[in-house]
Amino acid sequence: MLRHIARRLGSLHGQQIFNGLKGISPDQLLSKEIHRHLQSSLETISPISTTSLWPFSSQPRDFSQPNSSWSPEMRKVYDDYIGLCDTDSENGEKQKGPWRKLPSYNRSIKYATAGIHLSKLIQAKARLFTRNVKDQGATFEYVVFVNKEEKRCVCVFQAGHLLEGAPGHVHGGAIATIIDTVTGTLAGFLSGPIMTANLNIDYRSPMPLGSVVLIHSALDRIERKKTYITCKVTSTDESKLYTEATALFVSIGVGHLFGSRN
Amino acid sequence: MLRHIARRLGSLHGQQIFNGLKGISPDQLLSKEIHRHLQSSLETISPISTTSLWPFSSQPRDFSQPNSSWSPEMRKVYDDYIGLCDTDSENGEKQKGPWRKLPSYNRSIKYATAGIHLSKLIQAKARLFTRNVKDQGATFEYVVFVNKEEKRCVCVFQAGHLLEGAPGHVHGGAIATIIDTVTGTLAGFLSGPIMTANLNIDYRSPMPLGSVVLIHSALDRIERKKTYITCKVTSTDESKLYTEATALFVSIGVGHLFGSRN
Repeated sequence: MLRHIARRLGSLHGQQIFNGLKGISPDQLLSKEIHRHLQSSLETISPISTTSLWPFSSQPRDFSQPNSSWSPEMRKVYDDYIGLCDTDSENGEKQKGPWRKLPSYNRSIKYATAGIHLSKLIQAKARLFTRNVKDQGATFEYVVFVNKEEKRCVCVFQAGHLLEGAPGHVHGGAIATIIDTVTGTLAGFLSGPIMTANLNIDYRSPMPLGSVVLIHSALDRIERKKTYITCKVTSTDESKLYTEATALFVSIGVGHLFGSRN
Repeated sequence: MLRHIARRLGSLHGQQIFNGLKGISPDQLLSKEIHRHLQSSLETISPISTTSLWPFSSQPRDFSQPNSSWSPEMRKVYDDYIGLCDTDSENGEKQKGPWRKLPSYNRSIKYATAGIHLSKLIQAKARLFTRNVKDQGATFEYVVFVNKEEKRCVCVFQAGHLLEGAPGHVHGGAIATIIDTVTGTLAGFLSGPIMTANLNIDYRSPMPLGSVVLIHSALDRIERKKTYITCKVTSTDESKLYTEATALFVSIGVGHLFGSRN
């Protein structure tokens, strides 16, 4: 049963759904280690098919698609990166691009033992923190593009009016949230299931509400179970530095969250 | 005009409203430094009076009052700390307690130049990140108690179902958010207007959704404009350690956010 669940495991950063965990043995999947963030490797990302494993709907909504709340600046950067992604040419052949857009959902899959403090009713209502507000543009509008060869990713992020900290500016916690999300997506992409072990964030300049920024994340190094990621948050023209961060993720098994007992 | 606005400045962590910025000269208030977090010192916190400076309503709601979403565990810890706060005795005299509960609102005050990327309509809808969801219990339920003499504070935090990261567990960004909020409240309480300069967070153990935890923040040291705060997140009986963090805040002027031009 656990193996069955593990095969159906969705992303914990809401970026991906995948049908398998390549490079990880069932025993690793059933490890009793504690963990928070699980991620797939790129190879395991697959589009929703007729045999979708999404437990809530046959067509989960990808929240990282353009919508009417996106500013022209957000849309332009998105279009620029889309232009660098794989495309289907007219004759049906795939044209290779260095970038790939990751989808983003509003939760991962149902969990077995998680949410032990919540009623079943409330558990079913749980949603990914960054996708929990339905009002488009109100909180986190973001899309992540990965570059496999260069082992890095870029997130285009538009900060909505419900993310306020200082008057008219984005809350430090909201910035930490998108940094955790983006660095965790890259770490999971490169190393498989992981959890955040450390975030070290230097806030260099306040970010006005409504800003569109780029979150650049890159692999620093991998040492055994540890994946080190660096991160910079800049204006879209990269002239202004808002935030710098490092993040450490540790590779983990997935059994614990899905019912394995200590 | 700026001095007028500065006098009306509300908390940037939504904990406080105050009528003045003691120990800060008007020139300092008009400094052009950049900044994100502003906080009052304890002396400047005053209850809403008939001459309330709250710009939206004469009776802003204190979101850190008990509500029906609070679990018995949350309520019990709250009651324990309330019992250690100042109380009015029967003969009308104040009985001193070592702790003080801080109120918490869903935004600070209107801002002059902030939100430059937002329309006026959207600016008016801006809300504090930690208080932006109306559904009680869905996101951040929290209350901060400060102990002036010991230069520390404790936040009782119940993590709602919309804060999900890993299935059934609290998102690392949500934990970072409440840590930024609580350490920033303490730093501002001790040092006046400040902004977050660094957050360094070690995630020790995953936190199940619905958990009630304590966020203990204490002053490490103050060096000129730098206020260093330490932080631990534990279970309510303090037997389990979820997270450890350090935070650095720098004292700032308040002019920039309110219209001072570079």
